[in-house]
Amino acid sequence: MIDNTNIEILDTTLRDGAQGEGIVFSVRDKLGVTEALDELGVAWIEAGNPGSNPKDLEFFRTASSLGLKNAKLCAFGSTRKKGLKTADDNQLRSLLDAGTEGVVIFGKSWDMHVREVLRVDLEENIAMIAETVAFLKNEGRLVIYDAEHFFDGFAANPAYALSSVKAAADAGADRIVLCDTNGGTFPDAVITGVKAVQNSDGRKILGIHAHNDSGLAVANSIAAVQSGCVHVQGTLVGFGERCGNTALAALIPNLELKMALRCLPEGNLARISELTRRVAEIANVTISDDMPYVGAHAFSHKAGMHADGILKVQRSFEHIDPKAVGNGRHFLVSEVGGRSAIAEMAKKVEPTITKDHPVTAALAVKLKNLEADGWAFEGADASFEILVRRELGRHKPLFRIVAYRVMSEHPSGDTLACSHAWVKVFVEDQAGAHQYEIAAAEGEGPVNALDCALRRALTRFYPDLAKVRLEDYKVRVIDGKEATAARVRVLIESTDGRRSWNTVGVSADIIEASRAALVDSIEYKLLSDMELVSSG
Amino acid sequence: MIDNTNIEILDTTLRDGAQGEGIVFSVRDKLGVTEALDELGVAWIEAGNPGSNPKDLEFFRTASSLGLKNAKLCAFGSTRKKGLKTADDNQLRSLLDAGTEGVVIFGKSWDMHVREVLRVDLEENIAMIAETVAFLKNEGRLVIYDAEHFFDGFAANPAYALSSVKAAADAGADRIVLCDTNGGTFPDAVITGVKAVQNSDGRKILGIHAHNDSGLAVANSIAAVQSGCVHVQGTLVGFGERCGNTALAALIPNLELKMALRCLPEGNLARISELTRRVAEIANVTISDDMPYVGAHAFSHKAGMHADGILKVQRSFEHIDPKAVGNGRHFLVSEVGGRSAIAEMAKKVEPTITKDHPVTAALAVKLKNLEADGWAFEGADASFEILVRRELGRHKPLFRIVAYRVMSEHPSGDTLACSHAWVKVFVEDQAGAHQYEIAAAEGEGPVNALDCALRRALTRFYPDLAKVRLEDYKVRVIDGKEATAARVRVLIESTDGRRSWNTVGVSADIIEASRAALVDSIEYKLLSDMELVSSG
Repeated sequence: MIDNTNIEILDTTLRDGAQGEGIVFSVRDKLGVTEALDELGVAWIEAGNPGSNPKDLEFFRTASSLGLKNAKLCAFGSTRKKGLKTADDNQLRSLLDAGTEGVVIFGKSWDMHVREVLRVDLEENIAMIAETVAFLKNEGRLVIYDAEHFFDGFAANPAYALSSVKAAADAGADRIVLCDTNGGTFPDAVITGVKAVQNSDGRKILGIHAHNDSGLAVANSIAAVQSGCVHVQGTLVGFGERCGNTALAALIPNLELKMALRCLPEGNLARISELTRRVAEIANVTISDDMPYVGAHAFSHKAGMHADGILKVQRSFEHIDPKAVGNGRHFLVSEVGGRSAIAEMAKKVEPTITKDHPVTAALAVKLKNLEADGWAFEGADASFEILVRRELGRHKPLFRIVAYRVMSEHPSGDTLACSHAWVKVFVEDQAGAHQYEIAAAEGEGPVNALDCALRRALTRFYPDLAKVRLEDYKVRVIDGKEATAARVRVLIESTDGRRSWNTVGVSADIIEASRAALVDSIEYKLLSDMELVSSG
Repeated sequence: MIDNTNIEILDTTLRDGAQGEGIVFSVRDKLGVTEALDELGVAWIEAGNPGSNPKDLEFFRTASSLGLKNAKLCAFGSTRKKGLKTADDNQLRSLLDAGTEGVVIFGKSWDMHVREVLRVDLEENIAMIAETVAFLKNEGRLVIYDAEHFFDGFAANPAYALSSVKAAADAGADRIVLCDTNGGTFPDAVITGVKAVQNSDGRKILGIHAHNDSGLAVANSIAAVQSGCVHVQGTLVGFGERCGNTALAALIPNLELKMALRCLPEGNLARISELTRRVAEIANVTISDDMPYVGAHAFSHKAGMHADGILKVQRSFEHIDPKAVGNGRHFLVSEVGGRSAIAEMAKKVEPTITKDHPVTAALAVKLKNLEADGWAFEGADASFEILVRRELGRHKPLFRIVAYRVMSEHPSGDTLACSHAWVKVFVEDQAGAHQYEIAAAEGEGPVNALDCALRRALTRFYPDLAKVRLEDYKVRVIDGKEATAARVRVLIESTDGRRSWNTVGVSADIIEASRAALVDSIEYKLLSDMELVSSG
């Protein structure tokens, strides 16, 4: 019997994920991803292909000492080479050398692939599958059999596709995983394929491995689970070959929250946003802000009507509680937003502020004027909090830029970079004593030079600023019609290693716009260290 | 009868898309998006909410002069205010003032929303729906009725949800669109909901509006179409409130290539990659590389095995032919359409260039390297033509910047603007005589100061430059992670009153990037006056 209350998750970030364009993992990166996935609590981590990549073998040697709490490792490889005995196949030998509890073997189920890509006859392919699985079972491994191109094969030649899967099952495979390798299959075809395998032999523990080339990987995995699959493969962030694999960060919340299935140890779902970001960080990919469940904007509400609705009834515009996946709600302060959203944000500074508080009304007017000038606070919570403090009359700047000069010259002289800047700041300490400081810096372009000089001047007074670095820098020309005299909006994301915050600046002068966003960023860091604003 | 071979597409990039975090459209942006969508050939463009946003009304006034070939415009609004007569409702008045052929009206179908968010009784909500639809029909509009939260409402109180839809249909609504407003519905529930509406009244032309909060927007739209919906709403790129709307760039190829349904005029599907990128460029959002069908990596093959398979049999690892959607197998921009596309562009400079010309091969290599450094010539034809001239050994620069210096200082002195620049140029005339010129200018920000100084220096030699002005200026940070030291790409659109042309520059220094794009822009103008390049 198939147990339908628990779904076994196999994460292949380190194997199929590593086939995504631009993804390159060092051994150290792989160990970091493994630890994150183990903390999350997936059942299996498919960690590499030791037969095709020597770096992977090094990883498996090191990984055995990690002491994983939840996950088991598996190595990935193919059926034996045509015409070779399993015992003589070096690739299979490497798989055993990896020393993992599980081994994933992929084999061909599409007759066209057998004939034209593998170039063996249909019977030899069946023998390759059966002998490989039997060999690994005999060596005491748990064998997960990936039926590559199963759905395409089933559409082309159903009897052959089913016979390839039966060969693996009869040889003792512990899991039979139906793969939509090219990602072109629709959910209705997935259901048909899964049912056909079930009808041909009900004993198997079935799994699904979907790709996102049609934008349907999550839907296909759900359709397979609804049809009885209990093993699901994917990558946490979703990256992988071409359009990527099933994004487990979207799939797991769907299965746990909407279908009451258990994929992770109890309590761990609330860590999925954090751990998905950590894996993305290691892979050096950006999680798109609108990624389901875990994206930065997944629970952002911009339309005033939506913000107002949420405050009346939470589920009115939210399909789940963001806390369930460790994400947070976010109201965008914008021209389409309303006073409810403004008050909700302002509460972070002063909890007594309501929709009808006079400060809310004053802020609404101020925002409208600022937005007409091109400001946008929806991506700049930290600047908004400083604005609220100002409106409440509580803001005393912690420093002031007295003057600065930024120069760009081409060609550069022999002794100075093309861009350089100096800044003079005025700082008044708690006791009222004040001091001036001047600092200079060179940079990659004028904005970077100003940034470096300003930090250098202030670090003498606020040594903690040394920990702050900028994570992202965005420039938007607000009305291109004015061309090089157009106003620009600069958005900066900063971090001190513990948390991130966003600030904004607007001016016709990109240096002035950057200056405003940089000053807000530094002030926010200092204020939140003093616990005068929220902690990001 | 519902005609199931053609699917009516409504794109709401300019309305629901504009509710995405970080999306801010100027009126000019909106006109650009409208033209792109019309070129693609969607049936309807939902272009704004004139009742809640005065900027939208300005757009509708301008848009009526666009002369759209394929698409019709519609304005979006809500049912009448509670307790008000339709004729006295200003919001409905604004909808009519927009002067569009179609009007989209959303109304409540979830009883909880009616009671707790709208705070009216259930009967009044029905009256609001019926009267609003009847009022607009009476004014001669085609009415598309969006049943907000239909699936959540149907799950909570099926009879009420169906009665709300019936009210709209009985009042004459031309389309009934079932919305998964919160994005939490699964495909099986979509099918159940669509069938229930069909069973309660088979006459309606049904549509679907899905959100991607569960990663299922494309799947839900397909399930709805498979159940008989013939109208689909979404946004081309997929952005929108929270996790976005159904990405039409993924959905339309699924419907046309996999289900043999017609969504666009014949031949237009092959332009969907290009036009999706254009809309993303206007919205200043990045299309994720792994986006189905249109992403840069959608047909990239990293695993050696896959590449090998593809060379043997194309469909072995590709679910469709990338050309069908105007994408390419490796897709660095240079290879979008492969060498044929490069040759096609190069012909503007030298008509004898073919796909097999050595210059085409040399350009392909050059483009690949430039693109790896962040250059993009898709939006910069004029820079590309200058590149071709250089590759042909025919480019002799008409001027050279010997040196420049740009300064920004705050506060400014009494006698000089905050930003000022000087530029020294070298110009060699047709007869070989050469001259230097130096000029200075103040500006709104450093880039504008440089731009003004450069034009001033050159106008002495090329008086026609006085007619040139910049129409648009865009900045894109290429890798935000490097923060203020990140590389930026500057795109400039220039005009001399008769035609427009686009140029590009890339550098870690925004002033250098702007300088490169400005120099190309001026050279292109001078060359085309001399009829050495195409005339834009």
